[in-house]
Amino acid sequence: MRFSAETTSDGVTERMFAVGDVPGAVWAPAGAAGPRPLVLLGHGGGGHKTAPAITARARRYVTANGFAVAAIDAPGWGGRPVPAEYEPFNAEIEELTAAGKPLGEVFARRGVVAAALAIPEWQAAIDALTGLDWIGAGAPVGYWGVSLGSAIGVPLVAAEPRIRAAVLGLMGLETLAEPAARITVPVEFVLQWDDEIVPRDSGLALFDAIGSAEKTLHANPGGHMDVPVFEVESSQRFFTRHLAP
Amino acid sequence: MRFSAETTSDGVTERMFAVGDVPGAVWAPAGAAGPRPLVLLGHGGGGHKTAPAITARARRYVTANGFAVAAIDAPGWGGRPVPAEYEPFNAEIEELTAAGKPLGEVFARRGVVAAALAIPEWQAAIDALTGLDWIGAGAPVGYWGVSLGSAIGVPLVAAEPRIRAAVLGLMGLETLAEPAARITVPVEFVLQWDDEIVPRDSGLALFDAIGSAEKTLHANPGGHMDVPVFEVESSQRFFTRHLAP
Repeated sequence: MRFSAETTSDGVTERMFAVGDVPGAVWAPAGAAGPRPLVLLGHGGGGHKTAPAITARARRYVTANGFAVAAIDAPGWGGRPVPAEYEPFNAEIEELTAAGKPLGEVFARRGVVAAALAIPEWQAAIDALTGLDWIGAGAPVGYWGVSLGSAIGVPLVAAEPRIRAAVLGLMGLETLAEPAARITVPVEFVLQWDDEIVPRDSGLALFDAIGSAEKTLHANPGGHMDVPVFEVESSQRFFTRHLAP
Repeated sequence: MRFSAETTSDGVTERMFAVGDVPGAVWAPAGAAGPRPLVLLGHGGGGHKTAPAITARARRYVTANGFAVAAIDAPGWGGRPVPAEYEPFNAEIEELTAAGKPLGEVFARRGVVAAALAIPEWQAAIDALTGLDWIGAGAPVGYWGVSLGSAIGVPLVAAEPRIRAAVLGLMGLETLAEPAARITVPVEFVLQWDDEIVPRDSGLALFDAIGSAEKTLHANPGGHMDVPVFEVESSQRFFTRHLAP
């Protein structure tokens, strides 16, 4: 783990890092010392580790809860090279876009490939981050990620026992049924009632398929990008419930 | 409006009252003076104005927000005489119960009758309560009520412009489509994913039918009576967002 830049503002220290060739950012209270919970943020398609919505969410979780928060760029985003494995999907996306056809299904299939690449990257990032003395080896870990962040997050949360609570959503059942059924930790699931990318029934079916005894669906009107801002606060309180000491 | 008893504990004053022959309870911070928002609590079938879950919720809203909170007994509950209008439904409920058949549909039809009786009672209670100098004529009003509390609440919220935000749920579309479409205020809608009284699709359809631009569905696993306790906090924060000055 290599750190490259550190800035502090409004009581929050942001550090840029890399684990292998994966770039990341980690936020914590200024002067943080000793162990604390860690929340991972998985950005959406087109986003990156320090996109404004990611940075704002990270600062909120740090300020409200005193947690550490980290994000990494997904393979092919944030300036990372586009994996060769995406090429057939990206060609299909170009064709569908030109034809004005729906993209949800090809996004979901590309997401399966993205997850296979990203899961070991997230696990290496967790290893490195929990090695920091201001996070610690026993840190309870949370994961937030919707859309691409859930294409990666659903199989990641299913595979990674250090993750004890997750906010997921804006994805459908078709490519995620198997890992969804293996999730057992508490989940808050975000669904957009008029999502133009994920059909409503497919999103409801993914919520239904999640294996957790405690799961809560938050559905709101509007399209894929219209998740209301009050869901940021809701997710913060969800992580407080499940990760705070 | 006649007050009959007043007790204060843990910083909350509970006053028992009646408006006409409708008994109620109102909670406020001890020593409350001056205007404040008012949240109305509509109990479920089998409940009453000071059932433990109602009282606990009232105290939470008072303590967290400084609001006034009031509940009244619905017609036929809490010791009030059973309206003659309920008799055919109650006979049907007895027969269905004896036969082990589902009750949701007859509960919903009886709820229509209950609402017709209860709406003017709630409106008279709002008139009286907003006449108190520690609530005030301009108080923004919220309404919380699920199950029977929504059989009454959906048409009440549609009819009563003083109600500016509502938490509703645990009811289906069939008897409530028309008033639901007339609701325009922000709504938090509670649905139980495995509700044995309200079929899932009927509950989702009622959420869909609500006319409000801002509405949020909170669905959780479990049966009709299994709404998780964290939804109490969520509703409290919903009312903070929409009613606090």
